[in-house]
Amino acid sequence: MLPETNHHPEFQITRASHVSLGVTDLEASRDFYRDVVGLVVTEETDDVIYLRGLEEAAHHSLVLERSEVAKAHRVGLRVRSADDIVAAEKHFKAANIEYQRVERDHQGPTLQFRDPVGTLMEFTSEMDVVERKMQNFNEFVAGAPQRLDHYQVVTYDVKTATEFWTGLGMRISEYTAAGDDDELWGTWMEVKGNTHDLVFTNGRGPRLHHFAFAVPDGQSLLHAADVAGALGKGDEIDRGPGRHGISNALFLYLRDPDQHRVELFNTHYQFIDLETPPIRWDVTNPRRAQLWGMPASNRWFFEASEFPGEGVNEPLLKATPETLEAYLGLH
Amino acid sequence: MLPETNHHPEFQITRASHVSLGVTDLEASRDFYRDVVGLVVTEETDDVIYLRGLEEAAHHSLVLERSEVAKAHRVGLRVRSADDIVAAEKHFKAANIEYQRVERDHQGPTLQFRDPVGTLMEFTSEMDVVERKMQNFNEFVAGAPQRLDHYQVVTYDVKTATEFWTGLGMRISEYTAAGDDDELWGTWMEVKGNTHDLVFTNGRGPRLHHFAFAVPDGQSLLHAADVAGALGKGDEIDRGPGRHGISNALFLYLRDPDQHRVELFNTHYQFIDLETPPIRWDVTNPRRAQLWGMPASNRWFFEASEFPGEGVNEPLLKATPETLEAYLGLH
Amino acid sequence: MLPETNHHPEFQITRASHVSLGVTDLEASRDFYRDVVGLVVTEETDDVIYLRGLEEAAHHSLVLERSEVAKAHRVGLRVRSADDIVAAEKHFKAANIEYQRVERDHQGPTLQFRDPVGTLMEFTSEMDVVERKMQNFNEFVAGAPQRLDHYQVVTYDVKTATEFWTGLGMRISEYTAAGDDDELWGTWMEVKGNTHDLVFTNGRGPRLHHFAFAVPDGQSLLHAADVAGALGKGDEIDRGPGRHGISNALFLYLRDPDQHRVELFNTHYQFIDLETPPIRWDVTNPRRAQLWGMPASNRWFFEASEFPGEGVNEPLLKATPETLEAYLGLH
Amino acid sequence: MLPETNHHPEFQITRASHVSLGVTDLEASRDFYRDVVGLVVTEETDDVIYLRGLEEAAHHSLVLERSEVAKAHRVGLRVRSADDIVAAEKHFKAANIEYQRVERDHQGPTLQFRDPVGTLMEFTSEMDVVERKMQNFNEFVAGAPQRLDHYQVVTYDVKTATEFWTGLGMRISEYTAAGDDDELWGTWMEVKGNTHDLVFTNGRGPRLHHFAFAVPDGQSLLHAADVAGALGKGDEIDRGPGRHGISNALFLYLRDPDQHRVELFNTHYQFIDLETPPIRWDVTNPRRAQLWGMPASNRWFFEASEFPGEGVNEPLLKATPETLEAYLGLH
Repeated sequence: MLPETNHHPEFQITRASHVSLGVTDLEASRDFYRDVVGLVVTEETDDVIYLRGLEEAAHHSLVLERSEVAKAHRVGLRVRSADDIVAAEKHFKAANIEYQRVERDHQGPTLQFRDPVGTLMEFTSEMDVVERKMQNFNEFVAGAPQRLDHYQVVTYDVKTATEFWTGLGMRISEYTAAGDDDELWGTWMEVKGNTHDLVFTNGRGPRLHHFAFAVPDGQSLLHAADVAGALGKGDEIDRGPGRHGISNALFLYLRDPDQHRVELFNTHYQFIDLETPPIRWDVTNPRRAQLWGMPASNRWFFEASEFPGEGVNEPLLKATPETLEAYLGLH
Repeated sequence: MLPETNHHPEFQITRASHVSLGVTDLEASRDFYRDVVGLVVTEETDDVIYLRGLEEAAHHSLVLERSEVAKAHRVGLRVRSADDIVAAEKHFKAANIEYQRVERDHQGPTLQFRDPVGTLMEFTSEMDVVERKMQNFNEFVAGAPQRLDHYQVVTYDVKTATEFWTGLGMRISEYTAAGDDDELWGTWMEVKGNTHDLVFTNGRGPRLHHFAFAVPDGQSLLHAADVAGALGKGDEIDRGPGRHGISNALFLYLRDPDQHRVELFNTHYQFIDLETPPIRWDVTNPRRAQLWGMPASNRWFFEASEFPGEGVNEPLLKATPETLEAYLGLH
Repeated sequence: MLPETNHHPEFQITRASHVSLGVTDLEASRDFYRDVVGLVVTEETDDVIYLRGLEEAAHHSLVLERSEVAKAHRVGLRVRSADDIVAAEKHFKAANIEYQRVERDHQGPTLQFRDPVGTLMEFTSEMDVVERKMQNFNEFVAGAPQRLDHYQVVTYDVKTATEFWTGLGMRISEYTAAGDDDELWGTWMEVKGNTHDLVFTNGRGPRLHHFAFAVPDGQSLLHAADVAGALGKGDEIDRGPGRHGISNALFLYLRDPDQHRVELFNTHYQFIDLETPPIRWDVTNPRRAQLWGMPASNRWFFEASEFPGEGVNEPLLKATPETLEAYLGLH
Repeated sequence: MLPETNHHPEFQITRASHVSLGVTDLEASRDFYRDVVGLVVTEETDDVIYLRGLEEAAHHSLVLERSEVAKAHRVGLRVRSADDIVAAEKHFKAANIEYQRVERDHQGPTLQFRDPVGTLMEFTSEMDVVERKMQNFNEFVAGAPQRLDHYQVVTYDVKTATEFWTGLGMRISEYTAAGDDDELWGTWMEVKGNTHDLVFTNGRGPRLHHFAFAVPDGQSLLHAADVAGALGKGDEIDRGPGRHGISNALFLYLRDPDQHRVELFNTHYQFIDLETPPIRWDVTNPRRAQLWGMPASNRWFFEASEFPGEGVNEPLLKATPETLEAYLGLH
C-alpha cells in the first residue's frame, strides 16, 4: 500500500533548494561545476564556494565546502516562509524528530534535521537575492543548467522514508514496487507540481545518489557531454545520455572530482491534478530504468555519497538474483 | 503601485486548464490543431472535438465547438478540489461576481463566471483521466505540444483585472509599466510556480489574444514552423520564432483557420520563492517584446478573439504616438 | 534557357574559401565575429585580423582589413592545386579576363580577377594549416560556425554572371526565373556537391549580399540569436530564423558593425548526381524566399556591400510592381 | 606508411549510393526502416522493397531483399557517368579484378565486383529520379534520415583494402594505427569532400559492420532513440548516443530485425583541401572510439553482417591482450 499524502501539513515545502558537498580539492571541484557542468559561481571564500543555476535568483543551490573527506554534507529544501520554519520545529518536536536552528550565510532562518532514515536535511525559507542570468546567453556554458531540481537518496528503508515525507505533504508521482504486496523499492515524490523533488531508492543507505539540475533541452545534454570530453572528463559520465521510463527524464550523469554525482536532465511532466494516480513500475521492468539503450554502469548502480556521522545500513529489502539481474537491465 | 498578492485565498487556483473556441469549420480546425500544432484528439462528436497535449492526463485542454461565428467561448482554470469550487462560489457571492454552476462533459464540478473586465472564465476541479502520451514518441507530430500552459487576454483595464486576479491568489512575476506612476500596461501572473498562467495586456478588450502550449525545446518550434510550411500554413505564423524579454519565452505564434491564435513556447523559469520581486519592464523598452529580431507583425499586435456576448471597450490607457512607436518596436 | 555546365574545365574550383572585408573599426568587427557569430581568431596584426570556423584547418575564411570605408574587398574561392592556378591564368588570358597574381599572407599562389559583372574574386590553391577546433567543444560560442560555405552576390546581369561561372565548371542546383522565357532572376551554383557555393541574384550590383557559415543545427541559430540579444546586437538580425524554399536552408542573417551581412545556416542537401535536374522557382512564388513566417525586412532585400573601385549598375531586369510585391512577399 | 591517393584515376567515384540487404522477414524489416529509422519507402514488390532518405532524389539507397539467410548482399557506390563505368571495366580488367555487368531495376549501367579483400561491391552511374522529400517536414519520422552517407567494412587486411581503394581515388581522412611501423588498423576514406564514404577496420572479415545515414542534428538522434523505445526496439541500440573521436561523428547505432546494423549520425567535417594531412589515432587511444561516455557493447565490437559466398578470415593483425583492452575502452 502506498502511503497517502497529507496535502495540508502545517507548513509547506516548496522545492529542492541547495545541496552542500564536502570536497577534497576545492578549486578542482569549482572548475568542474563551472566549466564541465556550467553553473555560475556566486561567491568564493577560502573554504566555501557557492554556485547556482543560470536562472536562479537565490544565492546558491550548490555549496562546495573544503573538507578532509568527500561526503554529502546536507540536502536543503525550501519552505514557504519564516512562519513555516516555526511550524516545522513544532511539528518535529511533536514527532520526536531531532532538529536544530543553524546559522547559514546568505540564508534566512534555517532548520537542520535528520529524517527517520538518516538523511541530513535542512529547511530554509529565504536566501539572498542575486541576479538571474537566464538572459545572459553569452555566459551559457556546457549544459547551461538552469536550476536545481531534485535529489535522489539511497535508503535502506524506502517505506519509512516515504511515510515520513508524504506526511510532510509530498506526493508520490511514480514508484517502483515488487510482488503482490507492492513492496516499495523506490518512490518519486514531489511538491512543486512536476514529477519529483525527492526520490528514495532501495540500497545501502543513507547515501546521496545524485542531485539534479534542469537543462533547457536535449541538445544541452549532448553539448555537456561534448564539453566533458573536450576537457578530459569524458570518462566521468557514468550513465547516459538516455531516457528513463520513470519520470520520462532525458538524462546525463556525471561524477565530480570526488565522485559525487550530478544529473543534468530535461522534460519533466506536470503533476498537479489530484485525480491523477501515481504510476507504478515493477522493479523487474527494465524500461523503468531506460526506455532505450544500454543499462547503466555498475558505478551508477552501486556508488553514492555518504553523509557525515551516519553509518550505512544494509537494505531491508533483499533482491533475489533474478530480481537483481532484471533490475540492472542485464537481459 | 502593484497590487499585493493574497497568498491565502479561501480556494486555490492551480493552473490553466482548458480553452473552448467557437470554430466555423470543425474539421478544418481539428486538422490544424492535430497536424500543424501536434495536439492529440481525445474525442470527437458531431459538434465538439476535444484535444490535449501529449503529456496531459486530463481529458481536454482545447475544446473546439462548431459555431456560426468564431469567438473564444471560455477560458478555464483548475482549482484544487471540489471544496474549492464551493469556496469560490461563496467568495464570488460576497464579491458580487456573477457566476453559475454549469455541466460540462468530462469535467467535474464547474463554475462559470465573468471577471470584472468581462473575460469569460470557468473553474473546474477535475477531469476524466486519460492516457498520458508523453512516451509515445512515435506519435509526436509538429511542435509536440506537451501541455496547456497559459492565456493572454487583451483588456481595456489592466489594473482592475490584475487586482481581481491577485486577490484570488495569483502572483505577479513580471509587468510592463509606463511613467513615474507605474501605469500598468501588462501583468504576467502565475499560480503554478513559473512565470505565467494568466496575462493581461492593454488594448481593446476583452479579447483572447492567445493560449499557449509548452513544447519540449526550441527545435520543436522550428519543426512546427517547418510542418506549417509543408502543409501550406506557413503564412499563419504571425510572429516568431523569437525570444521575449518578458518571461524569457522562446515563442512561435500561429493563427488557426478562424484566426484564433495559439502560441508554442519553451523555457519558462521557476518563480516560487517569496523574496523574489517581480520584474518591471518599461513599456517603451522594445527588448520586453523581443530580445532579438524583427518586431511582431501588426496582425499580432492588433488582432485577437472576442468573447461572445461581450462588447469590446477602448483601453483606458492611451498611447502617445511616441509610446506606440516604441511599443511596436518601430525603431 | 539555363546555361549548360561544362564539367571538365582545365582547372577545378573546389569550394568557397575566404572573404575579405574592409571595416572601419577593426576591434568592434573582431568582437562581433568572435563573440556574436562565434568565429575563432587565428591571428591579429595592427591592420588585419584573420578568423576561421571551428572545424577549419585553413588559416582563415574571414579577413577583416582596417579601412576608411566599409566595402567588400574580395571574395575567394579555392582551386585544387597550384597547377590549377596556372591553368586558370591561361584560361583567363584566352577569355580576355583581366587578372593578376597577388601575394597574400598565409595563402599559396593567388590569382585576383574581376568576373564579367564586376565581382572582385580571387582564387588560391593553398593556405597555412592550423588546428581544427571542432572537438574543442568548450570553446564553442554563439552559433558555433564550423566553416565558410557560400557567397551571395547581387548583380545587374544574372545571365552573364551565370554563363561565366558555369563555364568554369559550376553547376546550377536551383534558380529563380520569370515568364515564359525563363528570364534568370537568380542562380544557385555549386562545386562541392551540395546546393551552393556562389549565388547571383538580380538587383543593383555588383554588391556582396552576404557570405555564409554552416552551423551544426537549428539550435545553434537560436543560440546565436540569443547571444546577439544578450550582447545588445539583437537588432542586427535583419532576417530569420526562417527556412528558405530555395536550397532548404534554415537561416539567420546578421549585420556586422559596418553593416556587412553574414548568414548562419544549416541543412544543405547533397547535389552530386548528374541526372538530377536543377529546381526552378518562379520569382513570384513567395515560398522560394521563405517556407514559413514573415517576409524579410526591406534592409535585407535592398542593402548590400559594394566592392571598391566598382560602380553599381541598375539591374537589366526590371520588376513590374506586381512582381516586386510578390517578390518581397507582400501578400 | 599510408598508401598515397591517386587523385586522377580514369574514372571518378562520387559517393556511397546504396546497400542491398538479405532479410528474412521482409515486412518486419520494412517496418523497422520506415518507422524506427524513418526512411521513405519508394517502391515495394513481393520480394524487394526500395527505400531512400528524405532528401534523396535517387530511387533507392537501401534495398531489402527477401532471403533465406540474412547477409549483406552488396554495397554500392556511384561513379560520375556511364563513361566511368566503361573506364572502370577497363581498369579492373588490367588489374585482374573479377567483375561483371548486371541489370538492376531502377539503376543505370551497373558493374558488380569483389575488391581484393572480398567485399561485394557495385558501381552504378545513374538511378531513376524520384521526388526529394526534404521539405515534406510533415512526413519526417524518427531520425529523419536525409541520405545514405558511408559504409564500414570489417576486413582481415586493412592495408590491402586501403591500397586498393586509394588506388581508385579515395583519400584517407583519418586512420588508426599501432606501433612504430604504423600498422594500419582502420582507414576512413572519402571521395565526396567530407570525412568518409568507405571505412575498413581490422577484424574477422569481410563483413559489413554498418551503413550510415546522415540526420539533421543531434536532436534527431535522441528522437530516433525515443521512437525506438516507444516501439519496443530500445534494446536494438547497441551503441550511443555518443561522439566518436574519429571523424567527430555524433552517433547512434541500431540493429534491424536480422541484426544488420544501421548508423544514424551527424556532423561530418569538410575534407577537401590537399594540404590537410589525415589524422592519426593510436589504436590504444580510447578517445578515438568515444570522446565521452561508456564504451560500446561487445555486440557492437564483434558482430557484423557476412557477405554471401565469401568466407570469413581471421585478421592478419592480432591484438595483444593489452591492445585489445585499450581498444575496447576497458580502462
